[in-house]
Amino acid sequence: MMNMTAEKIAVEFDMFAEAERLFSGLEATSTSTVGITREAYGKGEQKAVELFITYAAEYGLETSFDGAGNLVIVLPGVNRNAPCIACGSHLDSVPQGGNFDGAAGIVAGVISLARMQHESFVPACDLKVMAFRCEESAWYGKPYIGSSALLGKLSVEDLEARHRDGKITLAEAMKSSGADLDRIFNGESLIDLKSIAAYLEIHIEQGPVMIARDLPTAVVTGIRGAIRHRKITCIGKAGHSGTVPRWLRQDAFFATAELVSALDEHWRVLLERGLDIVVTSGIVETNAEVHAMTRIPDEITFSLEIRSQSTDALEAFYHLMQTECNNIARERKVTFEFDRKLTTPPARMSERWIERLKSISEQLDLPSALMPSGAGHDAAVFANAGIPTAMIFIRNDKGSHNPDESMTIEDFIKGTEILYHALKEPL
Amino acid sequence: MMNMTAEKIAVEFDMFAEAERLFSGLEATSTSTVGITREAYGKGEQKAVELFITYAAEYGLETSFDGAGNLVIVLPGVNRNAPCIACGSHLDSVPQGGNFDGAAGIVAGVISLARMQHESFVPACDLKVMAFRCEESAWYGKPYIGSSALLGKLSVEDLEARHRDGKITLAEAMKSSGADLDRIFNGESLIDLKSIAAYLEIHIEQGPVMIARDLPTAVVTGIRGAIRHRKITCIGKAGHSGTVPRWLRQDAFFATAELVSALDEHWRVLLERGLDIVVTSGIVETNAEVHAMTRIPDEITFSLEIRSQSTDALEAFYHLMQTECNNIARERKVTFEFDRKLTTPPARMSERWIERLKSISEQLDLPSALMPSGAGHDAAVFANAGIPTAMIFIRNDKGSHNPDESMTIEDFIKGTEILYHALKEPL
Repeated sequence: MMNMTAEKIAVEFDMFAEAERLFSGLEATSTSTVGITREAYGKGEQKAVELFITYAAEYGLETSFDGAGNLVIVLPGVNRNAPCIACGSHLDSVPQGGNFDGAAGIVAGVISLARMQHESFVPACDLKVMAFRCEESAWYGKPYIGSSALLGKLSVEDLEARHRDGKITLAEAMKSSGADLDRIFNGESLIDLKSIAAYLEIHIEQGPVMIARDLPTAVVTGIRGAIRHRKITCIGKAGHSGTVPRWLRQDAFFATAELVSALDEHWRVLLERGLDIVVTSGIVETNAEVHAMTRIPDEITFSLEIRSQSTDALEAFYHLMQTECNNIARERKVTFEFDRKLTTPPARMSERWIERLKSISEQLDLPSALMPSGAGHDAAVFANAGIPTAMIFIRNDKGSHNPDESMTIEDFIKGTEILYHALKEPL
Repeated sequence: MMNMTAEKIAVEFDMFAEAERLFSGLEATSTSTVGITREAYGKGEQKAVELFITYAAEYGLETSFDGAGNLVIVLPGVNRNAPCIACGSHLDSVPQGGNFDGAAGIVAGVISLARMQHESFVPACDLKVMAFRCEESAWYGKPYIGSSALLGKLSVEDLEARHRDGKITLAEAMKSSGADLDRIFNGESLIDLKSIAAYLEIHIEQGPVMIARDLPTAVVTGIRGAIRHRKITCIGKAGHSGTVPRWLRQDAFFATAELVSALDEHWRVLLERGLDIVVTSGIVETNAEVHAMTRIPDEITFSLEIRSQSTDALEAFYHLMQTECNNIARERKVTFEFDRKLTTPPARMSERWIERLKSISEQLDLPSALMPSGAGHDAAVFANAGIPTAMIFIRNDKGSHNPDESMTIEDFIKGTEILYHALKEPL
C-alpha cells in the first residue's frame, strides 16, 4: 500500500527533479575549481544557506537561525508546542571534497518537507530541518561545531582554536554567522532538549560496504567511538645490519611488525566472535635523521586507532594491545612509549527508531540492512545528549572527503523516501 | 711451548707499549674533535701514512707505495722473489668514527714485523703490511677503494663518483696520492696476484657477538654477502579508517607487517637449521604527504637487506621473501614493487688458513671460536680475487662507526700474537 502511495505521489512531486535542482545549485556554491569547497563559516557555506532559504520560501516553509547560527527550516505542525521531529546534516564540506557529504541530508529533509507542503499535509508536530555549520574537523580541528554549539558542548579551548590557515579563531568565525557567543562560551544548551522528540540524519556512506553488499540504503546502528594514540614509539637499539645476529637484536621495526600482525590476528578472531572493531595504523616511520638500509632501526613511531560501536570492545582491544606490547617488549628487549590516549565514546542510535526505519525500508521494498557508522556525524552529538537519534546511509562510491564521491540520485531518492515516511509517521 | 716463547719475547719486545704508542699517535691524526676522522685521501689519512713510515724506519722496515697510492711496509725475506705473505687493513675512518676500525689491523701488522726485526728473525719470504686508503664507503659511496684499485676492480663509474661533499671525484682524490690512474681506469691489476701467497687481516668486530660470548679473539669464516633493495613499495588502497571493514581493506602497512613477521619467522627457523642469515629493514615510512591517523595507508616504502656467508642461503631467503609477497599480495589485494636488486657476493675465507689460525689460537690458549663477518672488509677483495685470505676479529664493545668503539689493548695484543705467529710460520 505504501509503495502505491509513494509511486502516486512521485508523479505529483518530482523528487528526482527537485533533488537534481538542489544538488546542482549546491555545486555552484563551491569556492574551489577542484572538487567542492564549502568552507565552514565561509563563503561557500553561506551561499548554501541562501540557496536553502530561497528553496524553503518557494514552498512556504519557515526559516530562521538558531542561537549557534545554524539554519532551521520548519514545516509547522498542528500542535506547535509539541516536541518537534528534527532531521538534518551539515552544510560545509572539507576543502576540495564532494557535493554530497553533509548536503545530502539537508536536501533530503527540505525535499521531504516541500513534498508534504505540496501534498498539503499538516504534521502533528513541527518538522524541522537543521542545517548545521562546520561539521568537518578540517577547518578548526574539531568536528560537529554547529550541532555542538547548539547543545552547549563546546569548550573554551574549542572556541579559541584557530582556523587551519591560522588567521582567525572559531569564536571569531562563529560571530560572523550571528551566533550567541556569550551563551556558547558558557556551555549552555541553546535549545530545550525536551523540545526535540527525535533527530534523524541522512548521510552518504563514507566507506565501501554498501557498494560491496549492493545496498542502496541502510539503517545505522550506531556511530563508532575510538581510542587513539597519535604517536606510539617503539625503542630498540641501533646496530650494524651485518654484524648483529638475531639473538642480540633489539629491532624496533621487527617488534612493531610483530605487534601489528598480532593485532590483526586478534581483530580477525574478534570479528568472528561478532564484535564490531576496526583497527588502523595510518602513520609509521623510522627516524629519517638516522635511518639507513644497513642500520638496525632503534626507533619507529606509529599511530594507532581502534574504533567500535561498543565501549567494552574498545577497552578490551586496547587491553589486548597493551598485553601484546608488554610481551613483545620483554621478548625483544624493546620498549613501547605511548602519547596521550584519546577517547571518543561511541554513540548508540535509538533501538526503537532503528526498528521503525527498518520497517519503513521493508515497506518500501528496500533492504533493511543494518550497519555501523565508522565516521562521526552531527547525529552523535544528539545521541550523546540523550535525544532519540537515528541515521540512514545512502550508498556512495569512492568514499568521501575527495572530489570523486559519487552517490546516484536514484539511491538518494530511495533514502529520502525512508526519511519522508519517518517524518510523516513518526514514533 | 709457544706460550713460553710468547711470554719470553713479550719481555724483550713490549707489544703493549708499542701498541699504545701507535694508537695514541693515530689519535693525533684525527681532524675532528668529536670521535676520530681520517678522511680518505685527506689530511688525517695522510698523517697516519707518515706515522707508519716513521715507525717502520725506526725498525729498519722498508716502505713504499703501491700503484694505487697505498702504503706498503716490508720485512724482507730470505727469498725476495717468493710469493709474499701480506697482512693489513685500512687507514681511513668514517667521519667521527673510532680509532680502531681499520687502523688496528695495520698496527698489528707493523708491530709484528717490528718484533721480528727486534728478534733478528728473517722470514723465508717477504712479509708485507698493506695500509689501504679509502676503505670506508662514507667518503665516495663505495667501500674498499684502495684494495680494489690495487687489484684492478674499480669501474669508471666508481672512479667518477663524487666525494660526499660533492667537490671532487674519487679519481681526482686518488691522483693526489700518486695513484697510477691510467692503469686503474683500465681495470688492470697493479700487482701480480701470484706474488701474494696469502692475505691476513686483523679487524675489530663491529657487532656485539664477542662481548656477548666473552671471546677476546675469533677466527672469521667468511664475509657475508648481501641481497638488498633500497626501496620496496607496498601499494594498497586508501580509505577512511572508520568506515572500511577488515574484509574490504587493502592496508599497505598491515600487509608489510605481515611480510616482516613472516620473514622473521623464516629467519628463526633457518637459523635453527644452521643457516647463516641476518635480515634487516632499516627504513620504513608511510607517505608523509598524505598519511594521517584516520587514513588507511595506501602506500608504504621500506628497505630490505638479507646477508649471509652463503650464496645459496641468500637466494633461498630471497625466494622465500618473494613467495610471501605473492601470498600476501593475493590475500590482501596489495602489490609489492621492487627497485633494483643489489647483490654483493659473499667472500669465503681460506679453509686451510682458518684451520691454521684456529690452531695458533689454541696453542696461545686463546679461544678457537669461529664467526662470520657481517661487515665488509678489504679481505673480501683479496678473497674474491682468488688469493687465500683469512681474518682475525678482536673483541670490541659498542660497535664501530661511532666515537664509542672500545677495544682493549689487552685483547688487541692477543689478536696480534695470533697474527705474529701466522706471519712467522705461514702455511
